[in-house]
Amino acid sequence: MGHGADHPCPHPVAIPPPKPFFKSLGTSLKETFFPDDPFRQFKNQPPSKRFILGLQYFVPILEWAPTYTFEFFKADVIAGITIASLAVPQGISYANLACLPPIIGLYSSFVPPLIYAMLGSSRDLAVGTVAVASLLIASMLGKEVNPNENPELYLQLALTSTFFAGVFQCALGFLRLGFIVDFLSHATIVGFMGGAATVVCLQQLKGILGLVHFTQGTDLVSVMRSVISQTHQWRWESGVLGCCFLFFLLVTKYFSKRKGAFFWINAMAPLTSVILGSLLVYFTHAEKHGVEVIGHLKEGLNPPSLNDLSFGSTHLMLAIKTGIVTGVIALAEGVAVGRSFAMFKNYHIDGNKEMIAFGMMNIAGSCTSCYLTTGPFSRTAVNFNAGCKTAVSNIVMATAVMITLLFLTPLFHYTPLVVLSSIIIAAMLGLIDYEAAIHLWQVDKFDFVICISSYIGVVFGSVEIGLVTAVTISVLRVLLFVARPRTYVLGNIPNSVAFRSIEQYPVANNIPGVLILRVDAPIYFANANYLRERISRWVDEEEDRIKASGENSLHYVILDMSAVGSIDTSGISMLEEVKKNMDRRGLKLVMANPGSEVMKKLDKSKLIETIGQEWIYLTTGEAVTACNLMLHTCKPNPSGGEYDARDNNV
Amino acid sequence: MGHGADHPCPHPVAIPPPKPFFKSLGTSLKETFFPDDPFRQFKNQPPSKRFILGLQYFVPILEWAPTYTFEFFKADVIAGITIASLAVPQGISYANLACLPPIIGLYSSFVPPLIYAMLGSSRDLAVGTVAVASLLIASMLGKEVNPNENPELYLQLALTSTFFAGVFQCALGFLRLGFIVDFLSHATIVGFMGGAATVVCLQQLKGILGLVHFTQGTDLVSVMRSVISQTHQWRWESGVLGCCFLFFLLVTKYFSKRKGAFFWINAMAPLTSVILGSLLVYFTHAEKHGVEVIGHLKEGLNPPSLNDLSFGSTHLMLAIKTGIVTGVIALAEGVAVGRSFAMFKNYHIDGNKEMIAFGMMNIAGSCTSCYLTTGPFSRTAVNFNAGCKTAVSNIVMATAVMITLLFLTPLFHYTPLVVLSSIIIAAMLGLIDYEAAIHLWQVDKFDFVICISSYIGVVFGSVEIGLVTAVTISVLRVLLFVARPRTYVLGNIPNSVAFRSIEQYPVANNIPGVLILRVDAPIYFANANYLRERISRWVDEEEDRIKASGENSLHYVILDMSAVGSIDTSGISMLEEVKKNMDRRGLKLVMANPGSEVMKKLDKSKLIETIGQEWIYLTTGEAVTACNLMLHTCKPNPSGGEYDARDNNV
Repeated sequence: MGHGADHPCPHPVAIPPPKPFFKSLGTSLKETFFPDDPFRQFKNQPPSKRFILGLQYFVPILEWAPTYTFEFFKADVIAGITIASLAVPQGISYANLACLPPIIGLYSSFVPPLIYAMLGSSRDLAVGTVAVASLLIASMLGKEVNPNENPELYLQLALTSTFFAGVFQCALGFLRLGFIVDFLSHATIVGFMGGAATVVCLQQLKGILGLVHFTQGTDLVSVMRSVISQTHQWRWESGVLGCCFLFFLLVTKYFSKRKGAFFWINAMAPLTSVILGSLLVYFTHAEKHGVEVIGHLKEGLNPPSLNDLSFGSTHLMLAIKTGIVTGVIALAEGVAVGRSFAMFKNYHIDGNKEMIAFGMMNIAGSCTSCYLTTGPFSRTAVNFNAGCKTAVSNIVMATAVMITLLFLTPLFHYTPLVVLSSIIIAAMLGLIDYEAAIHLWQVDKFDFVICISSYIGVVFGSVEIGLVTAVTISVLRVLLFVARPRTYVLGNIPNSVAFRSIEQYPVANNIPGVLILRVDAPIYFANANYLRERISRWVDEEEDRIKASGENSLHYVILDMSAVGSIDTSGISMLEEVKKNMDRRGLKLVMANPGSEVMKKLDKSKLIETIGQEWIYLTTGEAVTACNLMLHTCKPNPSGGEYDARDNNV
Repeated sequence: MGHGADHPCPHPVAIPPPKPFFKSLGTSLKETFFPDDPFRQFKNQPPSKRFILGLQYFVPILEWAPTYTFEFFKADVIAGITIASLAVPQGISYANLACLPPIIGLYSSFVPPLIYAMLGSSRDLAVGTVAVASLLIASMLGKEVNPNENPELYLQLALTSTFFAGVFQCALGFLRLGFIVDFLSHATIVGFMGGAATVVCLQQLKGILGLVHFTQGTDLVSVMRSVISQTHQWRWESGVLGCCFLFFLLVTKYFSKRKGAFFWINAMAPLTSVILGSLLVYFTHAEKHGVEVIGHLKEGLNPPSLNDLSFGSTHLMLAIKTGIVTGVIALAEGVAVGRSFAMFKNYHIDGNKEMIAFGMMNIAGSCTSCYLTTGPFSRTAVNFNAGCKTAVSNIVMATAVMITLLFLTPLFHYTPLVVLSSIIIAAMLGLIDYEAAIHLWQVDKFDFVICISSYIGVVFGSVEIGLVTAVTISVLRVLLFVARPRTYVLGNIPNSVAFRSIEQYPVANNIPGVLILRVDAPIYFANANYLRERISRWVDEEEDRIKASGENSLHYVILDMSAVGSIDTSGISMLEEVKKNMDRRGLKLVMANPGSEVMKKLDKSKLIETIGQEWIYLTTGEAVTACNLMLHTCKPNPSGGEYDARDNNV
């Protein structure tokens, strides 16, 4: 066999020009933390303009307020009033779910929306409390502090954990670590939300059945045990009322789904239920027949709660943990909702900036008696449907809530709790997205497994167990992809210079005497051993096949490196070993199309000299041409392969 | 712009033929757990032959024993005696390091090598105790049980943890989970071994300086504080003796390294030191002048220790944890050593089978008063250099140790501990592989960071901290690669149909009106958001560039999917959004060369219909040709691109 340098090599493989270490470090840090290039607009601007742009960057209201029109205002007022009519009953219901005083839920719809209107970059997001985070707060804090026995401490902890959630959200945003939220995959969220919705609905059995004693656990088993063991305590008045309102809410929901223009039916239904329920109780005195009511609500705006933040408490670690977990969950929902609606209207949302806005609003909230808020999907969808134009709709909502707080709280005295339970159940049923789960099963079985384990974890374990399981499985999937990358044998697609997997393209032809392998992942420590074994197994199998079919023996092994995006030192050692192994078997190792990262490492580790620069080709086609040329030159009677070397002489 | 179906599409992209769910599940499970295809040899064999092959598979001695020759035996006897001369002093030293009675170290060189000789598949591996695992046992168990105050309980725990290490190793092997060991990357191991060697050397300061009281901590700070605070307790006799023997050992090491044939000098040096040291103490009565000696060693073979395994103890969790950690570390060293030497001699080692062999030998060991053993590098290298042929050298070594145990233990009565410390230091200095660290820095900065953090973690924290840090950083690196994949703009390499990154190949030409992007990683939930933003940023930047240069406007965006090995449902949604986004901008999304996984998912999610089957091409070249054709047909005066569509008409 002649020396490689003899044959023509028309397209050398470039080693990327060396970059100084700190420059390449800078580039990769920038790609990691500033992928959206937020400084782009600051380029080539005078300092004064830069200052204004910087201010607008951190306080987006300064950007859009100057161009705000009366037309926008009209639209925003309508949208704002609509979401306020949803915010009041939902606020009370979710505060109930979080085992907090109902008034806290109303407070939470006043201050945070105002902060978000100034700092947030979404035009559609409506701020408010959410069911899942409320449930999480109740289940995490409830483990250490009983909200019925020690309501003050419980409230302090809820506010403190809201404060930490805000700090954590801000920190994620400032440190540009928003991509952590991306690790909650779509499949995880579908399963998690479905599970949480199921759990929240189960919790409402307490309200619907009018039970006084109820389990602290959130899992299906303890809830069902608690419900079934108390059959004699069920209150039919409460149950009938609950079922009626649930039916009413579901019917309105169904109608507004059928016709987009009827969205307001759905939006108004909760407030209507509250009014109807309150009137009913007021006139029938049902509160004396087992129908629990909200009772007295304090009038007046949010009292300051800075002194309630208890940093010296023995439960500080619990508050921090609760803050981080609920903060991440709230962020995931808020950012995803903001992004989805921005997609509809074709504007851009900066995830990290949104996190800072969410964080600031929760920090401010925790100082003004509000608990954790984010951008709930349901309220945002209503806002969007009502035709909101900017975040001013949040200001309008906050004003409406303010008026409620100042003058209308006595009206909620007779509101029955069972109506709130119905409102929660109706909202939650929409979150159990079984169609998405079916879609996952059809498209990607692994994603379905992630989704289901998340669901089962939440329903039978706890919210945290479900979340941790799903994230772990998701990460394991990524690691498994890297640990067990696919390798393919390539063949020539007839009438072309392209080489493709013979598994995907059964028409692809083998090249006699040449085995072409393709590695479909970066070569890292986690897969280096596997790849070494797998490559040698491919060669074994090819040699067995050749022996069986009586073809010409194998001479060349071409490694197509197109899909190898990166390589580490374990990978380099692996290639060295493969090279040695091939030499020992009397085979020639040829490389096709190594990328820039791979070429850099090959060069630095001197492996390029071991393999021989002349055995590295730009394309698989050129590598095959060269191998064929060598086979034809050195062997007087080569078996005529279907792939003719001259074809490729572009 | 005309419809895509009008232009010729010579090479359709194949959707891989549908596979039944359980078949594809089976294939991927097989690739994950049986990548080496161990059942291959069983195919097409009669049942009786299969039985024999199966027996040989699990007990490899049955495979090679029938062909064993007298020539082999001669070589193995020489190698066995050589490693025995190393095993005796090392066994005593390392048992000392693990805070176990010295005799346990000798026991551990008797039973485990016999088991390994039957079950192991390496021909070169010499079985024995290792310094790092010994240190780990001492530091982990020492946290709860003081070996000086409660030696019996401590011994029981060491044996119990050895038992669990064996069970864990066996389980990993049986469950085919050997790839877990691969997550300890080369860089991690270099840093970890270096750090552990440093820590072990520091511990020897106690023996060298003849200190009686010493810190329980293993980190640099507490050891140095302990040493410096006791300057008045230093014993010069001990120090001088230690330095002399250390010098002797290092000189012999240096010489045997210079000339391979002198390996036996290095191999014999420890035993020589022990004999010289013992004679010196015996004749000078140095044991009465501050030189501590081993003292009485019990004669006789390993006593059974099944009753010492304490499964009911309150420290059971500690024993299990210690067993798992030390078991993994021991496996990593043993498997890596076995593989390296198998590479030299060109035979194959099955990692999972090796794990079962290691596990069985530790389970058997724990029942016969042996503590954790594996295949230490130093002893195996000596075995290899001494010309061993099969695992019979282990049997010879075990026999030599047996004779020592039966008759020669009284000879070690006067062996000074300081000589053992010198032996350990001399062995450890070779493990601090600073050259490998420099190589890591040159080739891969990230690997260097992993290595150094592992080293610093071990030296300043503890062995576990170092290990956990390094593994976490390694895994984060993989996740970061997936979370922030590289994307490139491709250009046409002149005089070819190949398209490559214009960053790596500055000669590559842009195609006017067409932007070609390449994604260099699987598209997963972890990077879907990033990729969406990044793709839209590439398009923005390209449009800015076009605006600045006054070229023809952008019409087509080609996504080269060659390197996208896999995609999940989040990735599919991302592509859907990119498609919508491009439509909104009036750009056409074209795909080139999606792999089989991607095509399968595109097909199942109906995205293929949204994009249009006719906009998916086999190669980037064909996609560009089609785009150019459309541009030329629809526009009367196209700007003449350097890339001519007809070039590609192969």
